[in-house]
Amino acid sequence: MPSPDQNAPPLRRRGARMRSAVLAATVDVLTAQGLAGTTVGAVARAAGVHETSVYRRWGSRENLILEALTEQLDAAMPVPDTGRVRDDLATYFGALARLLATAQGEALLRLSVERDDTLPDRRLPYWTERLERGAVMVRRGVERGELAPDTDPGLVIEAISGALFTRALISGAPLDEHLATRLVDLTLTGALPRTPGGP
Amino acid sequence: MPSPDQNAPPLRRRGARMRSAVLAATVDVLTAQGLAGTTVGAVARAAGVHETSVYRRWGSRENLILEALTEQLDAAMPVPDTGRVRDDLATYFGALARLLATAQGEALLRLSVERDDTLPDRRLPYWTERLERGAVMVRRGVERGELAPDTDPGLVIEAISGALFTRALISGAPLDEHLATRLVDLTLTGALPRTPGGP
Repeated sequence: MPSPDQNAPPLRRRGARMRSAVLAATVDVLTAQGLAGTTVGAVARAAGVHETSVYRRWGSRENLILEALTEQLDAAMPVPDTGRVRDDLATYFGALARLLATAQGEALLRLSVERDDTLPDRRLPYWTERLERGAVMVRRGVERGELAPDTDPGLVIEAISGALFTRALISGAPLDEHLATRLVDLTLTGALPRTPGGP
Repeated sequence: MPSPDQNAPPLRRRGARMRSAVLAATVDVLTAQGLAGTTVGAVARAAGVHETSVYRRWGSRENLILEALTEQLDAAMPVPDTGRVRDDLATYFGALARLLATAQGEALLRLSVERDDTLPDRRLPYWTERLERGAVMVRRGVERGELAPDTDPGLVIEAISGALFTRALISGAPLDEHLATRLVDLTLTGALPRTPGGP
């Protein structure tokens, strides 16, 4: 993510430059101050813009943080396309496990759990969009004949990511890439005994 | 759960009777007032005991709520033993899906996400204990030869429950028993194509 241009005078940045400066400042403030310290005022000061410009564009602190972290998340988690569904999923969810072990990753997740007047309407479309990013990998596996034709792509993604989210958010149990791979293998292979000579 | 004896004078209840009266009052207050309204003072008034007695026994509001909701949770989710792992898991996680769709179930989950000085130490042992309750069903399936001998019982439980927790807490997507059954079938059967003549 480009860092804000320190030499540009406040209020002179517009449109895309203002947007990227504010989003980068949001991530910086989140990393330094945590979720509670990430106010619109603190972000505006760090980005060198007026607070009112931030409110005009994003409407609320929650929308601002959600957009900043989503950009980070999608940049940190490109959707791989190796031609093998198991490798794609292990790479993708290995990256998620690493991300959730960071302060920024956990902040994104905690923000999604917070409730306020602006968020309930946005949570479901937001997560539906994230889920769809992952489901693409499973759908390709079905098309290649690697997975059963009646596979529910979203359900596979929910089973793997749900266990990772739960560790980050609820149990506090450790997160690592090995765990991600084991979850991928469980959802692909299942826990039933393998047929001799079968997969 | 027994309701508190309305006729007992305050302070006369001791030990097990005091405990069950306070825990029942905690659930009542949670249901009526939500998590934010469930203070030690409100619970003590509802149970007819002194606030100091509650602090002496539970130490903090969080410990009190966690214990009250855990009793409810474990009572609402008996561990079935039908002799078939798929039926056991579908029954158990169907009950969890129903519970998470209630205000009390969601309150338990949200409490587990809240952070304060008393909780970090307790989250992991608390969730490890809950996970172990579920893992017993999978372990029995392995012993009966229904599941592969190298099955990780905890991982199966995490994959199923994690997806349910994520819907309740993060995405807000609908929760029902059918979803629980689909998750059970995915983790048991896997998404790979079934071998002809295989399971």
